[in-house]
Amino acid sequence: MTSGRVDHTAIAVRDLDKAIDRYRAVFGPAQVERAVVAAQRVEVAFLSYGDTYLELVCPLDETSGVARFLRAQGESLHHIGMAVDDLESELSRLAEQGVELIDRQPRRGVHGRIAFIHPRGTGGVLVELVEHDRP
Amino acid sequence: MTSGRVDHTAIAVRDLDKAIDRYRAVFGPAQVERAVVAAQRVEVAFLSYGDTYLELVCPLDETSGVARFLRAQGESLHHIGMAVDDLESELSRLAEQGVELIDRQPRRGVHGRIAFIHPRGTGGVLVELVEHDRP
Repeated sequence: MTSGRVDHTAIAVRDLDKAIDRYRAVFGPAQVERAVVAAQRVEVAFLSYGDTYLELVCPLDETSGVARFLRAQGESLHHIGMAVDDLESELSRLAEQGVELIDRQPRRGVHGRIAFIHPRGTGGVLVELVEHDRP
Repeated sequence: MTSGRVDHTAIAVRDLDKAIDRYRAVFGPAQVERAVVAAQRVEVAFLSYGDTYLELVCPLDETSGVARFLRAQGESLHHIGMAVDDLESELSRLAEQGVELIDRQPRRGVHGRIAFIHPRGTGGVLVELVEHDRP
């Protein structure tokens, strides 16, 4: 079961510096944490708004899935992240329900262990589950 | 300035009852609040996850903007909502910055006064600002 909160809402962007400036201008000042996620060929920026992040996701090259997303849809909402207390039991629960998963096993994310649910498993929306290292 | 938190993440759906069941099955139990927003020809459901909502938005008929969105993109992430303390001053601030607004004046939403920022104002994402009646 999720721990009952939205962890982040992620937006695919083409230029990370410009996007950080633009979203901070619109939504107000926020702490910014940047990280390269080499396995997914993206650089991300987490903007803290309360206990929820706005995550900006920018492809490092044209092979990234996010680059394909941008070519198809342009800069727009990409996925949502839900916080979970116990990622492995959550993945088991979803698999038992027949929910289609991208990751059947946890992998490392920026803030802890993560796994993605396939959009077909939710009815259209890419969902990331996050088990934070620091609760 | 926003009050520093994401209020909701909204998903366009074709069948509200089925979507409520599906998202509660994936994300876990949540209080559900339903409302018809006649002006926009939609019925919405707010699923409470902590202090953030997942909002499911379903068109009442084919004239709704959300019906057009569904025809173009299918069921997917539709907009994000940011909580603001003072909507009028926020709209003034954004207009002074040259951010393109859909609503230059507040109008009624389900939980308080709302206004939409045009996706061109954020670089691709439809954003709703919400000033809650009950802070």
